[in-house]
Amino acid sequence: MNGLMMDYQLTIDRILEHANRMFPTKTVKTMLPDGSMHVYTYADAYKRIKRLSKALVGLGVEIGDRVGTFAWNNYQHLELYYAIPGAGAVCHTLNIRLSADQLAYIINHAEDKVVFIDGTLLKLYEQAAPLVQSVQHYVLFNAPRDVATTLQNVVFYEDLIDGSDEDFAWLSTDEKMAMAMCYTSGTTGDPKGALYAHRSMFLHTLGSNQAGALAISEKDVVLPVVPQFHAMAWGTPYSCMAGGARMVMPGPHLQAQPLARMIEEERVTVAAGVPTIWTGLYHELKNNPRDISSIRAMVVGGSAMPRALTKAYESELGVNVVHAWGMTEMSPLGTVCNLQAHHEALPLEEQWDVKATQGYPILGVEMRIVGEEGEELPWDGQQMGELQVRGPWIISQYFKRPIDESYMTTDGWFRTGDVSKVSPDGYMQITDRTKDLVKSGGEWISSVDLENAIMAHPKVMEAAVIAIPDARWAERPLAAVKPAPGVEELTEAEIIEFIRDDFAKFWLPDKVIVVADIPKTSTGKFDKKVLRAQYAAGELQ
Amino acid sequence: MNGLMMDYQLTIDRILEHANRMFPTKTVKTMLPDGSMHVYTYADAYKRIKRLSKALVGLGVEIGDRVGTFAWNNYQHLELYYAIPGAGAVCHTLNIRLSADQLAYIINHAEDKVVFIDGTLLKLYEQAAPLVQSVQHYVLFNAPRDVATTLQNVVFYEDLIDGSDEDFAWLSTDEKMAMAMCYTSGTTGDPKGALYAHRSMFLHTLGSNQAGALAISEKDVVLPVVPQFHAMAWGTPYSCMAGGARMVMPGPHLQAQPLARMIEEERVTVAAGVPTIWTGLYHELKNNPRDISSIRAMVVGGSAMPRALTKAYESELGVNVVHAWGMTEMSPLGTVCNLQAHHEALPLEEQWDVKATQGYPILGVEMRIVGEEGEELPWDGQQMGELQVRGPWIISQYFKRPIDESYMTTDGWFRTGDVSKVSPDGYMQITDRTKDLVKSGGEWISSVDLENAIMAHPKVMEAAVIAIPDARWAERPLAAVKPAPGVEELTEAEIIEFIRDDFAKFWLPDKVIVVADIPKTSTGKFDKKVLRAQYAAGELQ
Repeated sequence: MNGLMMDYQLTIDRILEHANRMFPTKTVKTMLPDGSMHVYTYADAYKRIKRLSKALVGLGVEIGDRVGTFAWNNYQHLELYYAIPGAGAVCHTLNIRLSADQLAYIINHAEDKVVFIDGTLLKLYEQAAPLVQSVQHYVLFNAPRDVATTLQNVVFYEDLIDGSDEDFAWLSTDEKMAMAMCYTSGTTGDPKGALYAHRSMFLHTLGSNQAGALAISEKDVVLPVVPQFHAMAWGTPYSCMAGGARMVMPGPHLQAQPLARMIEEERVTVAAGVPTIWTGLYHELKNNPRDISSIRAMVVGGSAMPRALTKAYESELGVNVVHAWGMTEMSPLGTVCNLQAHHEALPLEEQWDVKATQGYPILGVEMRIVGEEGEELPWDGQQMGELQVRGPWIISQYFKRPIDESYMTTDGWFRTGDVSKVSPDGYMQITDRTKDLVKSGGEWISSVDLENAIMAHPKVMEAAVIAIPDARWAERPLAAVKPAPGVEELTEAEIIEFIRDDFAKFWLPDKVIVVADIPKTSTGKFDKKVLRAQYAAGELQ
Repeated sequence: MNGLMMDYQLTIDRILEHANRMFPTKTVKTMLPDGSMHVYTYADAYKRIKRLSKALVGLGVEIGDRVGTFAWNNYQHLELYYAIPGAGAVCHTLNIRLSADQLAYIINHAEDKVVFIDGTLLKLYEQAAPLVQSVQHYVLFNAPRDVATTLQNVVFYEDLIDGSDEDFAWLSTDEKMAMAMCYTSGTTGDPKGALYAHRSMFLHTLGSNQAGALAISEKDVVLPVVPQFHAMAWGTPYSCMAGGARMVMPGPHLQAQPLARMIEEERVTVAAGVPTIWTGLYHELKNNPRDISSIRAMVVGGSAMPRALTKAYESELGVNVVHAWGMTEMSPLGTVCNLQAHHEALPLEEQWDVKATQGYPILGVEMRIVGEEGEELPWDGQQMGELQVRGPWIISQYFKRPIDESYMTTDGWFRTGDVSKVSPDGYMQITDRTKDLVKSGGEWISSVDLENAIMAHPKVMEAAVIAIPDARWAERPLAAVKPAPGVEELTEAEIIEFIRDDFAKFWLPDKVIVVADIPKTSTGKFDKKVLRAQYAAGELQ
């Protein structure tokens, strides 16, 4: 017997309608390419989104068609997050940090019919354009009318909106419909596409805004530094409008200085970004102090925030750092590291230990760790295993790829590729990527643990640890270290001395190499594939 | 094209699994009938629920069968909220305040196969038992082994659990399955059943726990005074375990004195109940002061909290009062009255004006007000219309009744039967039940507005306003007033003088009658049907 409840479809237009109805005067502020601020209200956004959805249909976009976006975080990109799904199509966010080859690959693989391009990125896009086969129309914004371009079939965003009207009924009528997609920036093999449904993104929004999760409400002012082209900006375009938060969008201005200014001037309460952004901001604030104490949650994801930096933010700047962990394949939110009631009486140092973990799974995400024999491991804070997850906003399959055991278990769990341990109270800590673990003499060494320990050294800005081949032990760890600004000399001996007491002797790196910069992936993570290649080529000495 | 996300069913067992995994040490404390406290953990509850689900199957309960509960708020009732749906059956909460006839009617109408009975309510249940036809087994708890009863086929709850084990896979495999039901305490006609689905209750839980809604998290200690036999205890059995809150259950001890003690001793942060409970508590605290300032949200629903009482709680006791509005047909949560950012600078008196409203719809609930011609009315804070709602946790149909326009519009909105106005910022205020409006000379008079104004008088405990027939104006308002404790004399002139400046002259009641008590419905609302009957019979003079 079924319940007798309304068959109400969980579609993204419902979030927009709610925002327009309940929070029409809330604002979205964007720092434009020239540094000036564009401001408008949710009600303004709503009207433009309706017009844009209608215009997309006029352009020939049909239900299920993929529409690409190649843009920074700004109000137009926000509009696209709603207008494309509202027209029944799929918003495909294109990572601007991909190579021309990779970019063309994902556009062709997704068969994007239309691509929206931020004028500041036009030249970058044009490098890939000759390789692109599927696109019928390009739409430009943040670009002057007389812009020179090699692209064909170009229209202007504002012309589309001007030529349209608001008399449009959303075409997103079924919650199972695809509404967005995002390719992983996989460091191995071709990028793989996650294809989100209206239902999954609606549930992700409800999950994120739980009081025990990111808890975004209309009392918040949110600065999404995490780009909209990466992992759906961690859902902020949906969670902010669902909660009624004021939004501040940095546009292309991701440098520490403009970010610091925006946080101070707009009294930002929630800022979301990767550790490298917050590392840069910290050093900027040491040189040019600003009051950023309005922040109630500096959300960190993408990779782990060094414990030392969390401690510095909290003890020196009064800012609460909140780790979150997720994946493109998870919409992306999986875990959040808020302290809980039983942590309140702990000494600060122990609280920071907790905050160095990735936190607990939010309602809607199930998590387990699995050993090498496929057995589930206990949550004892010691044992490390492959992290596997399931839930309503986790992919069942990559786009146009078969389901296989490289990423899905036979009992229906997604294999994250992360190696983790979990404390008895459910706080998960990533100890490594499966492929980045160092296996020395049959024992696992966590490259992430070593990196965090080394990055606690005041003279260190960043550190990445990789496995290098070793005749006796099979693999041994090597650390590449980038000094903090102004540091003249940094030696291997200093580093080893600093971390010696924290680890078993066999964990200590065989080599510590000081480098000018550590290579990064398109999403700002340490690119260990490149580091390993550099080592193999004899470039890392 | 559909998204490629996991087909993950939103079933209530997922909430329980989450609670057991993430918050195993959180406690549920129950005040037993003898006044002693029973305490156990979520992990304890989990094991007993598994055993109980398995035992239900052993009793012959099949998928979709209805299983009744006749109980106060206690740990056993909490277990039933999960164990019955976990066995694939429907948890039918029976209102203990119904007449024997009504009680038997809903059991027979729902065809309850098993009924669980709280020993303290056994004698009450036995009055209805001879009229009950569908029940095959009774299960008793909070009852001595040698209890005398006229019931047949009785087993003891603890025997069921002892004779079972935890080796049981949940039978709730599809989110569309019915999982609970509750009959409205309708003051007209036969009670009507709302039949909830796993999906609707899961979404209701996510909706309630949004940061902008009730926001229950593991930092909270929740005291649900609202009975579990009424409107699913406003979802607290699910939202608390989903959020990880500690629970305090009052059992049969709903008097002001034990409630005050529990709040103080357990440092309750969220307490949920109807206005009559909070009126009683306030007067108790005036006589026997206790520190209840741990409360961050005193949630009020069922009917409107008089503004004067909200003000008294906040200014005298430091307690934040939060109106909520919902209906059995809405699972029940519809609106919540938290202040928003734009209210923060308002003078306190104006903040209390806002708090006197029922608040804004939470994400997942759509709301509109409709005029007599069926036209949607603007949200201008002035115009009153019938309140209509839709959303994923609102009924589409009553159990075993046809869909008809008395409760569903042809375009799919549920007709609440409430008359409301909505402010431009989305705060809804119930001005009356459709059937309780006073229509005088073609103009509407809100009985609720008059009641609130009268209840602000320090000598008044409660006031109810009804329409009485009038030869000239068709209807005129009459107020029945119950004096506050210790008040010796209270006159019509005092009341009219007190409210004269607040209303147009024609709104002022023609009669104010002082009564010893105001009749109430089974859920604690003023029973205006009885008042009208008393007036017609000449008993209200």
